[in-house]
Amino acid sequence: MECFSKDSGSHDRDHTQRVYNLCMHIGEVEGADMEVLKIAAYLHDVGRPYQDESKGSICHAEKGAEMARTLLEEYPVSDARKANIIHSIKSHRFRGKCQPETLEAKILFDADKLDAIGAIGIARTFQFAGEVGAKLHNPSIDPKDTKPYTEEDTAYREFKLKLSKIKDRMLTAQGRRMATGRHAFMEMFFERFLHEYKGHK
Amino acid sequence: MECFSKDSGSHDRDHTQRVYNLCMHIGEVEGADMEVLKIAAYLHDVGRPYQDESKGSICHAEKGAEMARTLLEEYPVSDARKANIIHSIKSHRFRGKCQPETLEAKILFDADKLDAIGAIGIARTFQFAGEVGAKLHNPSIDPKDTKPYTEEDTAYREFKLKLSKIKDRMLTAQGRRMATGRHAFMEMFFERFLHEYKGHK
Repeated sequence: MECFSKDSGSHDRDHTQRVYNLCMHIGEVEGADMEVLKIAAYLHDVGRPYQDESKGSICHAEKGAEMARTLLEEYPVSDARKANIIHSIKSHRFRGKCQPETLEAKILFDADKLDAIGAIGIARTFQFAGEVGAKLHNPSIDPKDTKPYTEEDTAYREFKLKLSKIKDRMLTAQGRRMATGRHAFMEMFFERFLHEYKGHK
Repeated sequence: MECFSKDSGSHDRDHTQRVYNLCMHIGEVEGADMEVLKIAAYLHDVGRPYQDESKGSICHAEKGAEMARTLLEEYPVSDARKANIIHSIKSHRFRGKCQPETLEAKILFDADKLDAIGAIGIARTFQFAGEVGAKLHNPSIDPKDTKPYTEEDTAYREFKLKLSKIKDRMLTAQGRRMATGRHAFMEMFFERFLHEYKGHK
């Protein structure tokens, strides 16, 4: 089994690299244990292929934590750090049962969410819309309607329903600052997008 | 044969509607013949399925002009206007042989190009990247390299190679003003995108 999902925009190697980059940046500002953070960032989505192939019945965060426990057995790092890495992976999921308790777990959580918003979030959302054959925009759909997604859906509805809420879930001060900037950028992007759609800009 | 291409982001009904909206806006500012512009906008891509199915050997602008000539035969509009509509469709293509000569042809040309840039252009480019399975970003590829596209390509290279040049091709004053704004927005978007990619924003 592959260690990364194959979908190009969402949870592939590049996502992991971006989350790693974000962890390094936030970790410096927040004064985190960078060794824990580096390993947790690189391994955080290692369980995702199991979630994808099980169509969601396996939780990638829980599976990833289990896999990390095995992978780290022989790795020359202290037991306390191993426990922190495993906890960070287990608790990084947006809708997960396990809440991040250590600083490193909170940073990984924030970094993973930050990668869904801002200019990167906009790019990923439209790229995903292209992958599933969705429309570029659909002014006839209420973006706040919570009915299940169909091909009639759009990146704008994803923004209104999900991405716009991420900024309120951040767990570290630096994560919150970055999420505020990324959120404002998305707001501005979609405001312009809607104007352009009408031919007015 | 369908009258619109089926690809969701690029040249479907929504593109035609956006080009129509842009034509109405630019046409008002420039004082164009709105009846000519309305019909030309709605029909401008009517020949595209022939270009797609012939893998490019048929030019959709020339084919569309021919089709429009037939479609307009019984339509209650003067011969001069019919000729202007047909000319506008024939000359709207970016790399076409026929140059736009009338104000309405120039507006249709500008509107069609404007729909490839700005926030809409960003959305379309990433959506197209998703449709063809391209990567979200590829820092190892030189965006100015002119070698043919592959799956290693990205929306950013499309911006650097093609979309960034559109603003210099506008033919009307209002088209140029709008292209300048849309271009500046794309510049800002990709600057932020590259910063975020490195985890710095």
